[in-house]
This record gives sequence, structure tokens and C-alpha cells, in this order.
Amino acid sequence: MALVRATLGLVETGRTEIHLPHWPGIEQQHGFIHGGVVGMIADSAAGYAAMTVAPEDASVLTVEYKMNLLSPADGDGLIARGEVVRAGRTLIVTKAEVMALHEGRERLCALMQQTIMVMAGKAEKQAG
Amino acid sequence: MALVRATLGLVETGRTEIHLPHWPGIEQQHGFIHGGVVGMIADSAAGYAAMTVAPEDASVLTVEYKMNLLSPADGDGLIARGEVVRAGRTLIVTKAEVMALHEGRERLCALMQQTIMVMAGKAEKQAG
Amino acid sequence: MALVRATLGLVETGRTEIHLPHWPGIEQQHGFIHGGVVGMIADSAAGYAAMTVAPEDASVLTVEYKMNLLSPADGDGLIARGEVVRAGRTLIVTKAEVMALHEGRERLCALMQQTIMVMAGKAEKQAG
Amino acid sequence: MALVRATLGLVETGRTEIHLPHWPGIEQQHGFIHGGVVGMIADSAAGYAAMTVAPEDASVLTVEYKMNLLSPADGDGLIARGEVVRAGRTLIVTKAEVMALHEGRERLCALMQQTIMVMAGKAEKQAG
Repeated sequence: MALVRATLGLVETGRTEIHLPHWPGIEQQHGFIHGGVVGMIADSAAGYAAMTVAPEDASVLTVEYKMNLLSPADGDGLIARGEVVRAGRTLIVTKAEVMALHEGRERLCALMQQTIMVMAGKAEKQAG
Repeated sequence: MALVRATLGLVETGRTEIHLPHWPGIEQQHGFIHGGVVGMIADSAAGYAAMTVAPEDASVLTVEYKMNLLSPADGDGLIARGEVVRAGRTLIVTKAEVMALHEGRERLCALMQQTIMVMAGKAEKQAG
Repeated sequence: MALVRATLGLVETGRTEIHLPHWPGIEQQHGFIHGGVVGMIADSAAGYAAMTVAPEDASVLTVEYKMNLLSPADGDGLIARGEVVRAGRTLIVTKAEVMALHEGRERLCALMQQTIMVMAGKAEKQAG
Repeated sequence: MALVRATLGLVETGRTEIHLPHWPGIEQQHGFIHGGVVGMIADSAAGYAAMTVAPEDASVLTVEYKMNLLSPADGDGLIARGEVVRAGRTLIVTKAEVMALHEGRERLCALMQQTIMVMAGKAEKQAG
């Protein structure tokens, strides 16, 4: 996350927020923030949310996610909000919204649904 | 894509390949390549594939994608292969596979399904 | 929808509800309601929600959807709630939740994210 | 599956086929086969494929799936082909294609990507 200059803005049980400033290194050809970067902060925000409800000695792995890009990721920066929808012993389902900031106002620019796997102990080499 | 040091390795009609070396700046906590970066090159490979079948003066926008992360993105680097599944006038459906390279051998590490929108003329401010 | 005995319980602008009784013909091997039927009512609830915000002479077509099945679809019946997330001229993004009813109480059993295409005039033969 | 008159046409290790005739009870308003029914046979074909690689005493549960509807499900009937992409101990990732039959010729009408969970012993009440 350091690579794209994202920071963790909020961590609560089942809920996190990631903040990303808009800077030239993460822009695509039209001057918006690259969809892949939007995906990256959404994935991370939801993954961290899952971590807050997993056992302390467990790792979490993203199994899959689905992302709708709703409007251009432009403006002054982005906020990704991750949230746990359902926490099971093995799988945690989460969702995330990404908001684009325009002079302090937020506009929804991406919506994600994600499945996370809880790995007992430290992360193993193979998901699944 | 320069940010993560990815390069376009192949461009054919309806098919592209993106190459990514494994370097420390794109690793997550376990030393694998970050899932968000895997998503980024898969999204780009499939998006470029869509571009090869869109009219020359049109732009393409990612509407949505769904990605399964199948095994850790480790090894010497990644290859993302994008492919057009069906090209309509307004929407193009694509898929991508991401392979992890281990001493010249490939292993499937991610699978993506994506919807792309064709925008006549230059990109507009609002998708949809 | 008649086939599975589903009925439209609510229609507002950007929001609908589908009700489904639990009956033997829609069960899978464990006595729960079949995941395909859960998908069918979620898809329909969100598609009808899209219809309420589309121009009157337009048709809507499901481009794609992604569904997480969170807990067994058991109990006395299901309610699928569809909602428009963002309505564009060409594409409408929606979401749906499916609740299982247990003696009047609801439990979330499925979560869906969907992309709908607006077709001017009557439906054409080819999506895209 | 009996409800929609679907039959299992092929079962191999990691691969299955479901056949569905076109009949009035499964049509939507334009005379095509309902998208929900397309989803149901794709989900089932891929789920059965997962079953062929799971331990004999285990159950499989659909965790999630994502489906692109590429062209109308019309013609004489449908064939859904399910295939295992990667089989882990806990999760199996599959894909499915649905083909519409027109006088013996096939046309791709839907593409699905799916995550399946393997449950040791008989199915439990709660996924995850």
C-alpha cells in the first residue's frame, strides 16, 4: 500500500477505511486514478475489515472479489470503506465502497463484494 | 502500469500479454506479489485485448471484473493473458489468466472475468 | 417467476421486493431452497428495480451478476430486495439481498451485485 | 433440476454437462430462456464438476459465482459445461460455459466463474 501512498484511516471491529491521495503516479491515460489502484484499496480495506473479526493468530487470504467501477476515480483523493457482511469460521464475506472526494464531498465510484479465507496459524503457501 | 514495472509483452487481435517482474515494492506481508497488483495487470491485459477489437476512435472503460486468486503470486514474475470472449457494439466481455513463473514453468495463480464498455469518441466523464 | 411461485411484493422507484414461499419443488438435496432459485429471485428483484428507473419505452437486460451465498436458504420462505446503486443512460448497477424467513425473523442468506443494460425501444436479439 | 427439466448429460472427473430443452415454462417475456434458469444450470454443472474431485464422503456448497450473460438463451435448448479450474482441500474453483443450440450448432450464451466449498462429512447447516 506504501507504493500507491495509501494509509489506513480507520480500524474498528468489522469496519475499516483506507485513504488515498490523488497523485500523478497512479493516473491512467485520462488523468483519473487507475482502476487497478481503485481495486487495490477496495481489496485492502475489505481484507483489513476481515482481519478485525478473525482469530488473532490467523491469517486472512483474498479468495475472490468482484468490483463494479461506477464513475471515474477523479477528484482530490479516494476513501475505501471495507465492511464485514458475514463472518464464518473458514470464510468471511465482505463488501467495500470507494468514494471519490471533490472539495470535501463524496461520490460513490466503486462497489466491491469479496470472499476472504481464514487460515489458522501463519499463512500457508497454497490458498484453498 | 509503469508504477508496478509491468510491460506489454504481446498484442494481437483480441489477445494481449502483460509481463511483470517480481520486485520488493509490490510484495505483501508474506513476500508474495500483492493481490491488488495481480488484479491490476489482469484488468489491464483484458482491457487492452478489448481495445484491439474496438473501433479505432473509441475508448474502452472497465465496467466491472471478478477475480479469483487461486494460488500465491510468487516466483520470478507474472504473465497476465487477456482475451476477448465476445465483442458487442457497446459491451465487450473478456477474460484473463495470470500465471506465476517458476524457473520458466507457469502455474495459474488468478482467473478473471470482465465487462468493458466501448465509448464512441474520446472518454467521457461518466461511465454508463 | 410463476414457475418457482415467486411474487412481486413491493415496487418503488429504484427498489423492489420479491417473495418466495418454501415448497418441495424448489428444494435441493438437503431440503434447502436451491441456490439457482435464490439467484433467480435476486436477479429478478434487482432487474425490476432497474426497470423502475429506465425510460418507459426501454427494455432492460442483465449483463452480469455476482452472488455470494452466505447461509442456507431454509425457513418458511425468502424475500429478495433489489436496489439501484447507480443509473446511467446505458448501464444500471444494482444490488440485491436475499433474506430467509424464520418465524417472522429475517436472516441474510445471499448478496448480489449486478450490471443491467438499458435497450432503447423493444429488446433486440443481441445483448451488447 | 427436475423442475426446469434439466438432465445430466456427461460426468467425467472434473467435468460435467447439463442439457436443458427449451420449453414455455422457463421463458421470460421475450421468449428466451430466463437468465435465472441459465444461472441455475451453469451453477449446477460447475457444482457437479467440483463433486467429482471432492472426497467421496464430502459435500460441496456453492460459496459464490459470477455470471456474464453474453447473448439471448434462445434456440432449441441449452448445454451447460462445468469444469474444475483448481481443486484445493477446502475450496474448489470452477468455471462453466452455457451454449445455446440452433439446429445442432452451438453459440456461447453465458460464462460463469464459481467458488465451491468442500464440507467434510454431511452438509452442515451453515456455510463458512
